Amino acid sequence: MLRWLTAGESHGPELVAILEGMPADVPILPEQIQADLQRRKLGYGRGARMKFEQDELSISGGIRFGRTIGSPVALRIGNTEWPRWVDVMSATPVDPETLPKGRGAALTRPRPGHADLVGMQKYDFPEARNVLERASARETAARVALGAVARAFLGELGIRLVAHTLAIETVRVPDGSPLPTPDDVAALDADPLRCFDQATSDAMVARIDRAHDDGDTLGGVVEVLAYGVPPGLGSYTHWDRRLDSQLAGALMGIQAIKGVEVGDGFETTRRPGSQAHDEMVYDGELIRRESDKAGGTEGGMSTGTVLRVRAGMKPIATVPHALRTVDVATGEAAQAHHQRSDVCAVPAAGVVAEAMVALVLANAVLEKFGGDSVGETKRNLEAYLAAIPDALRTGVITA
Amino acid sequence: MLRWLTAGESHGPELVAILEGMPADVPILPEQIQADLQRRKLGYGRGARMKFEQDELSISGGIRFGRTIGSPVALRIGNTEWPRWVDVMSATPVDPETLPKGRGAALTRPRPGHADLVGMQKYDFPEARNVLERASARETAARVALGAVARAFLGELGIRLVAHTLAIETVRVPDGSPLPTPDDVAALDADPLRCFDQATSDAMVARIDRAHDDGDTLGGVVEVLAYGVPPGLGSYTHWDRRLDSQLAGALMGIQAIKGVEVGDGFETTRRPGSQAHDEMVYDGELIRRESDKAGGTEGGMSTGTVLRVRAGMKPIATVPHALRTVDVATGEAAQAHHQRSDVCAVPAAGVVAEAMVALVLANAVLEKFGGDSVGETKRNLEAYLAAIPDALRTGVITA
Amino acid sequence: MLRWLTAGESHGPELVAILEGMPADVPILPEQIQADLQRRKLGYGRGARMKFEQDELSISGGIRFGRTIGSPVALRIGNTEWPRWVDVMSATPVDPETLPKGRGAALTRPRPGHADLVGMQKYDFPEARNVLERASARETAARVALGAVARAFLGELGIRLVAHTLAIETVRVPDGSPLPTPDDVAALDADPLRCFDQATSDAMVARIDRAHDDGDTLGGVVEVLAYGVPPGLGSYTHWDRRLDSQLAGALMGIQAIKGVEVGDGFETTRRPGSQAHDEMVYDGELIRRESDKAGGTEGGMSTGTVLRVRAGMKPIATVPHALRTVDVATGEAAQAHHQRSDVCAVPAAGVVAEAMVALVLANAVLEKFGGDSVGETKRNLEAYLAAIPDALRTGVITA
Amino acid sequence: MLRWLTAGESHGPELVAILEGMPADVPILPEQIQADLQRRKLGYGRGARMKFEQDELSISGGIRFGRTIGSPVALRIGNTEWPRWVDVMSATPVDPETLPKGRGAALTRPRPGHADLVGMQKYDFPEARNVLERASARETAARVALGAVARAFLGELGIRLVAHTLAIETVRVPDGSPLPTPDDVAALDADPLRCFDQATSDAMVARIDRAHDDGDTLGGVVEVLAYGVPPGLGSYTHWDRRLDSQLAGALMGIQAIKGVEVGDGFETTRRPGSQAHDEMVYDGELIRRESDKAGGTEGGMSTGTVLRVRAGMKPIATVPHALRTVDVATGEAAQAHHQRSDVCAVPAAGVVAEAMVALVLANAVLEKFGGDSVGETKRNLEAYLAAIPDALRTGVITA
Repeated sequence: MLRWLTAGESHGPELVAILEGMPADVPILPEQIQADLQRRKLGYGRGARMKFEQDELSISGGIRFGRTIGSPVALRIGNTEWPRWVDVMSATPVDPETLPKGRGAALTRPRPGHADLVGMQKYDFPEARNVLERASARETAARVALGAVARAFLGELGIRLVAHTLAIETVRVPDGSPLPTPDDVAALDADPLRCFDQATSDAMVARIDRAHDDGDTLGGVVEVLAYGVPPGLGSYTHWDRRLDSQLAGALMGIQAIKGVEVGDGFETTRRPGSQAHDEMVYDGELIRRESDKAGGTEGGMSTGTVLRVRAGMKPIATVPHALRTVDVATGEAAQAHHQRSDVCAVPAAGVVAEAMVALVLANAVLEKFGGDSVGETKRNLEAYLAAIPDALRTGVITA
Repeated sequence: MLRWLTAGESHGPELVAILEGMPADVPILPEQIQADLQRRKLGYGRGARMKFEQDELSISGGIRFGRTIGSPVALRIGNTEWPRWVDVMSATPVDPETLPKGRGAALTRPRPGHADLVGMQKYDFPEARNVLERASARETAARVALGAVARAFLGELGIRLVAHTLAIETVRVPDGSPLPTPDDVAALDADPLRCFDQATSDAMVARIDRAHDDGDTLGGVVEVLAYGVPPGLGSYTHWDRRLDSQLAGALMGIQAIKGVEVGDGFETTRRPGSQAHDEMVYDGELIRRESDKAGGTEGGMSTGTVLRVRAGMKPIATVPHALRTVDVATGEAAQAHHQRSDVCAVPAAGVVAEAMVALVLANAVLEKFGGDSVGETKRNLEAYLAAIPDALRTGVITA
Repeated sequence: MLRWLTAGESHGPELVAILEGMPADVPILPEQIQADLQRRKLGYGRGARMKFEQDELSISGGIRFGRTIGSPVALRIGNTEWPRWVDVMSATPVDPETLPKGRGAALTRPRPGHADLVGMQKYDFPEARNVLERASARETAARVALGAVARAFLGELGIRLVAHTLAIETVRVPDGSPLPTPDDVAALDADPLRCFDQATSDAMVARIDRAHDDGDTLGGVVEVLAYGVPPGLGSYTHWDRRLDSQLAGALMGIQAIKGVEVGDGFETTRRPGSQAHDEMVYDGELIRRESDKAGGTEGGMSTGTVLRVRAGMKPIATVPHALRTVDVATGEAAQAHHQRSDVCAVPAAGVVAEAMVALVLANAVLEKFGGDSVGETKRNLEAYLAAIPDALRTGVITA
Repeated sequence: MLRWLTAGESHGPELVAILEGMPADVPILPEQIQADLQRRKLGYGRGARMKFEQDELSISGGIRFGRTIGSPVALRIGNTEWPRWVDVMSATPVDPETLPKGRGAALTRPRPGHADLVGMQKYDFPEARNVLERASARETAARVALGAVARAFLGELGIRLVAHTLAIETVRVPDGSPLPTPDDVAALDADPLRCFDQATSDAMVARIDRAHDDGDTLGGVVEVLAYGVPPGLGSYTHWDRRLDSQLAGALMGIQAIKGVEVGDGFETTRRPGSQAHDEMVYDGELIRRESDKAGGTEGGMSTGTVLRVRAGMKPIATVPHALRTVDVATGEAAQAHHQRSDVCAVPAAGVVAEAMVALVLANAVLEKFGGDSVGETKRNLEAYLAAIPDALRTGVITA
């Protein structure tokens, strides 16, 4: 069982994350984690913050000589902007008079689409600073950092992931386009939208430019693919053991995600049964699938084919051309706070989604195969695959 | 914290369900649970099994004199067909020679889209009987029964649910159609598709008739609405506390669900930010929303408006016009097993989805308000609403 | 991960238990479970109820042809006394006028040492019937039934358990007496106190006779031993992964248990360090221990030697020579309710403790070794033991 | 629900702890946490490390302006000795040749009573450094820090804790001695053993001096008391909801603890039933107890009287007069590693036990009363107490 918690505010000194239950001997270097943190900042349409704010990674525990040691892994991601926020976000009491006028001002114009208003109601706050500090997407950096560790573990087992951008608003990769593989990650990272189709990527850039001019924001859809996943992760025996359930919970737990699909998802609901499933044929050696509509799960279990899930992100709720709200200090109509200037953060959401899928898969692997060192887990996994009777053998799609 | 487990096989003697953590003094009668079990069988396009198979409800514990007593609630749903399966599903060893030829035969032609093949690999079974017995949708009867208890609890707090069918394959309720309220449940139950739009319902019937003639099956989309949900259930503070995450996990944990949406879901990803969020206005008394695109959550918390979530169901994988597969006993190409003759089970999925949402909301209520008797929970909830400062007051949309 | 819930009231129709997460292919027959249920009733000093009340076992799911199938195991234990309680414990409303005078009377004289008074406060009950129905030790029958399944699983892995009575009040097995092994279970079951020392057993019988004459009750201490436990179950890496922590929580979760020890427990606190630990020597083949004071755990992990834990049970709180209390209906001083006439239930507590230890160990095994069939778990366990380097090899003490 | 994880190695850069689920508005200053960290180092018989090693506290998140904000609380405890261990405990690869001879040497002589040997087996380590770094009691500093936050929360609800030393080896506070209250904490902290009985404390000092001269170590027993605990925390309805179970798991999850008692614990097992329970009398206003043997729980629930639990600590396993072991590098008999020079750490264990009890109680409070701000939790608690009918009223013992 893998457990993990993150902590830290958007403008606090740092994010902190602990991952408990990771086996020993997983090779992982700070550079790998830092690289993923950097990938989270990618994408055309990001605001200035992504440029000046640096993620300073520290490893507090659980890794020694470049390998996990079975103990909880603790990571910190320092915020280089912290010196400017030291008073406003002080852990200790501060004389309110001394707070800077801008950053220290009460946030009383809650943004539609954000946690601001309900957060104040729930936690009994007079203004929204405490809410947005934690509800902010900056928290996802902590998940990405842990996801890098999970990915390193999965990599030792031959499981590799890749995420890409499927749509920005209505600009969408054509159906039937080739899927990227893990070997395409560098190419994707080099694309301004992390989109695997050049023409679509160009159109997305144009759409973002237009939204920028309009003072508007954009959402979209990302897809995560996992190759090398063995059959039998998750289970049909109880609803919350279903891999689909766990993946959906993890993806819908990302800020701004409003829809989740496994495989062809809602498109599958629009097909008759005769055309909706992945038929099986025997090729003389293995049982193979004639298609991959299901996204690599059947009965809540991985099938050994490519795992494929999607997450739909709403447009950023901090709209430059600000939305109508109420100033809760006065009861007057007002323009919502406008703190961030990203037009679009969909490519980053793909990197976060990849991290969440990695964490879910790592947990599912441990649930099925156990193991306290990566060698033990791998030995158990390989023995399982080897023990599948010839008549049931399906292989594992690796790339 | 609410915990629950279900058990039982599709053709076993009974399903069993335990719900642990329900406060005392929730009024609940067997008739209410039985009524929900009956609703799960509704819907045009169901096969013969729904007619002859009766759900015989027993209450084993946790309810006394028509009220919960704080102890775990245990329900049993007897299977009237059990006498015909007594040998095939015997808990004790049986001489294989004595098993009936039909029901007792090895299931070696795994159905694409079902748990059959991977289930055999994972659990090391030579044939699929053990798999499909538990992977079967009959298990959802146990969830519906528990959902009835959760719904009774929520009802005491003024939270009421309604589910309806939004689409059968490509036949879909027009955008902008009125939403049903809990007062419309009887009318929905009377509709052959549990659809709230008459013309669409008629078209759905026609589509199902055609599919039936084609030997095909159909999926679709259901929507669950919850009225009277107070603001502040769930939280932005950790990903798995987000109500959206919990709802998505619960809905995607239903058999055959491949997509989940909160509010307008994927449609929201196709709108620019200026048109995607629910702006706020002060009406002199309350802060109100100008729209309800978000589906009643912001920042992973309920907003007090109508909660609205959707689940997309793939067409039934047991297609009468059977799918291609491999007979794992021979390695020969074969037609998949064909055990059930439903053309469409989408209306039933709506009832199941409603149960899952009820269980998630009941847990979220207990997480926020605590309480060991429904009176205590209600007192805490009301005191919370009363304590929200006037300036932040939004009200709760009840119907 | 193993999850389990129990439900049912003491005088309700039945107890129900679900065990979720048990691998497939564990051989288990109703007779084995029934035998353990019978063992729970053993022991000199039990009252009449143990004699007339029969436990009627039914298997509702998760077991087929004498083997688990990976699906949740559901067991029911019918209460043969139910017909006499059908009104008093009715799940549906009953006219209070029609209730029998005795069994149906309000219980307003809470028993010191029982859940009665606090249960009424917590759940807002005017009298204690609802409380004692669930707080009663009859619930432990459900745990014993599940424990039998866990024990069958462990047995396939070579892990075998035995519990025995160490003390009845001040009558205690002499220090240094031989420990029973799993081969002694039948002999222990035949002893009136499940005590492994004949002279002590005789003295215990005499002490119980005297308590019976005095209208008094007695507690005592039981010990559970597990043989064949591999090294490395549990972990030092987080407090709640410590096997000791899990065992202590499980044992202290049994009704009437007020103390728990691992190994020599409190006696260890009274020894200097030089005499408190189990020194190691190399015998040319294995590293062996010179003693077994620690009870088979170090650093929160099993060591491969005999696991040994103890639970101290307070005397039964329903004292025939009744305790002083207050009648909450009148505020008058009163004698506490007196419903049960056992003098001593310590031997039964040993059987329950054994079941709890079995459930904890089964979960710990799955955490370390994974596996969806008992064959897979066993293969992983054996590969782990085989892979321990010669220099670190310690063996596993089996009996 | 309160969740928490700790991370960090004994000689790593820092310990890290995250506490998730704490309501907002709990007043907490770094000084309070630092004070508890300092108390963890108290006690006659500690070695040099306690003196030179400083705990440098940082707050990474979850606290603003001296109050919690509902978001996860993250604390760090820097290790001032880190500069000396920077190579040996490096997170990144280091040339083994460059490691210092002493601290960098392989630890191949596992200490009896420690995690060393089994840790190597479980995680497949060739030597014990990785094991002891995490198994070390230094990790308890992280728990103490989180416990300070939990204690601050409880304090707002009128629940206050105190721990004291009951025994060092065979030197024990006489039965019937007065119990300390929270007002005695300063006096206890000033006593060399945190013992509330002066004569016993003196005898403990003498015993420790003698053990020091002998090159030996000592264990003992600590007791934690909680005042102001309302009735009804925990529940009899399921074993793992029993407060006793949760307390036992938490206490036995502390390094070196081998026994746990609630109230008089094992002493209760040696009393007949007529003298083992806390009889009730009505004083004209409240139902009161005539004694407090049970330790403040009945039926797995707090009773409103003083909660009292004990933990028995084995003597430190790193015995100066070292224990016999095997050098796993050579197979030769050897003296066990000897890294730490404490003679006795029992007083510190009391502080850790207090922290664990605080965390358990804080979780139990949230389970019963809910609340996202301390004001909400308090309002719910007070309304519950006020709603207890006069006839059942027992009051809450505060000090």
